[in-house]
Amino acid sequence: MSARILDGATLAATLREELRPRVAAFTARTGRPPGLGIILVGTHPPSEIYVRNKLKAASDIGCRADLLRLPDTASREQVVNAVRKLNESPAHDGILVQDPLPSQIGGSQAVFDVIDAAKDVDGFTPVSAGLLVQNRAVLAPCTPSGVIALLERSGIDIAGRHAVVIGRSDIVGKPMALLLLHRHATVTICHSKTADLPAITRQGDIVVAAVGRTAFVRPEYVKPGTTVIDVGINRVTDRSEVEALFPERSPRRADFEKRGAMVVGDVHPDVAEVAGALTPVPGGVGPLTIALLLRNTVTAAEHREP
Amino acid sequence: MSARILDGATLAATLREELRPRVAAFTARTGRPPGLGIILVGTHPPSEIYVRNKLKAASDIGCRADLLRLPDTASREQVVNAVRKLNESPAHDGILVQDPLPSQIGGSQAVFDVIDAAKDVDGFTPVSAGLLVQNRAVLAPCTPSGVIALLERSGIDIAGRHAVVIGRSDIVGKPMALLLLHRHATVTICHSKTADLPAITRQGDIVVAAVGRTAFVRPEYVKPGTTVIDVGINRVTDRSEVEALFPERSPRRADFEKRGAMVVGDVHPDVAEVAGALTPVPGGVGPLTIALLLRNTVTAAEHREP
Repeated sequence: MSARILDGATLAATLREELRPRVAAFTARTGRPPGLGIILVGTHPPSEIYVRNKLKAASDIGCRADLLRLPDTASREQVVNAVRKLNESPAHDGILVQDPLPSQIGGSQAVFDVIDAAKDVDGFTPVSAGLLVQNRAVLAPCTPSGVIALLERSGIDIAGRHAVVIGRSDIVGKPMALLLLHRHATVTICHSKTADLPAITRQGDIVVAAVGRTAFVRPEYVKPGTTVIDVGINRVTDRSEVEALFPERSPRRADFEKRGAMVVGDVHPDVAEVAGALTPVPGGVGPLTIALLLRNTVTAAEHREP
Repeated sequence: MSARILDGATLAATLREELRPRVAAFTARTGRPPGLGIILVGTHPPSEIYVRNKLKAASDIGCRADLLRLPDTASREQVVNAVRKLNESPAHDGILVQDPLPSQIGGSQAVFDVIDAAKDVDGFTPVSAGLLVQNRAVLAPCTPSGVIALLERSGIDIAGRHAVVIGRSDIVGKPMALLLLHRHATVTICHSKTADLPAITRQGDIVVAAVGRTAFVRPEYVKPGTTVIDVGINRVTDRSEVEALFPERSPRRADFEKRGAMVVGDVHPDVAEVAGALTPVPGGVGPLTIALLLRNTVTAAEHREP
């Protein structure tokens, strides 16, 4: 392996520690801790884990963290009412509606739209998205903000570099491109309709993979020395897929043998031989997403009670 | 000249004609025409001309068009109050605050922010910008929307092509990039910090120049056959500059001799020898901006009274 490993888990721990004094100061000043309210509809198992991790991380740094549960059968109106309740709650500075929602809700965005922009710690409302485009976001989406924090704290230059973002989702791809652009990168956004994708991605000094396809970015997609950020979190249960990706003595493979499943990013393991720096999966961008959610919650609290 | 000339003036006339039946139907149905209110602060001469052209164009297709004038010395509060008045007016579906504003206002965006998003025919509010990012804009900014109309009506493919946008303003560069992305182009955004700009722009199947610098895009910036969209409107009064740009017998030069000034785009005239298609300045993107302002006004009216 030649690539420098960008350790997101360690940075996430640092960022969480940096929030403690802000949480303590806010609590001392206002007589209450910053508050995060999470709405969880149904019992989707991965969502249960994500929500538990978010609540625990918030509690750990001294925030209030509340879970509002709704049944699998909840109507859109019920979910919207739960959002309204948190909008009106003085104790809650941040609101998160855990995606995905059951199909009868008719799409998550209609629910996100109801969130008070001042409490929009995921950055998914139109107002948050618009302020981000206009380079004056207070609460930017957590995953791309985590990537920026990782690049900056790792001493990787952004200004004047060519950043290539693969993926154009509202949650990662587009806000990622905007955050890089505002830090003076030249930015290219690629997607499923891009012609000769490897020729485009090979231009990147920074390549961000956010496609949601296991090991999609192969060594030939990457110029030697490039910084590669892997946003993908793909669960793999097929042994032949694991065997194709990892050599026989790899600890990742041993891990798979033990659990019968593993998480693989959007970047092929062999990219480590070409890239200059690389985020691992797990332990790269993933932990930063939660750290940035906490930072947004504290920031929202500070803005609500300045 | 080899490039096909993309005639924005003719398309603008067509688009305006297409609005007439919509204006007539709206007026018949609601008993009032779609209404545009423009706020003009001070007496900046180019703004006087722009505003007059916009009001006349709106009247010509049967819209109501009102001008609210404020003195050069108006405070931000006075301008904001004028916006609020139009926000509350049932007769006005579109509100435009003519940029630039006098310095004591402290920036145009603080005024734009007050505009009711449902009447935001310039597409400059955070909500409009956010809905645009999320690919569900009702009212997108006029100049980039005009460029899309010109490409589509000229039969120039966008999906799967590489579009390079030079400039990253909130008003043109960024919304242009998003509109092209949502039509499935691979999009690169360049700017003053871009390294080796010609190498980047030469990749574009479509190049949009929105830098505000006279004749900035030279032939070596452009791959043969590329579609070049010139958003620049630069007033040139220096004879030596004109002589350097246009050959001795050029009608543009004769025009300059007559008026003592001329308008030149961001694209060098010699690019016409390389490009496959090119918008002229004047008569390219400029007239489309007003046509799209009218379309946004009619659309806003239809959405307000469905």
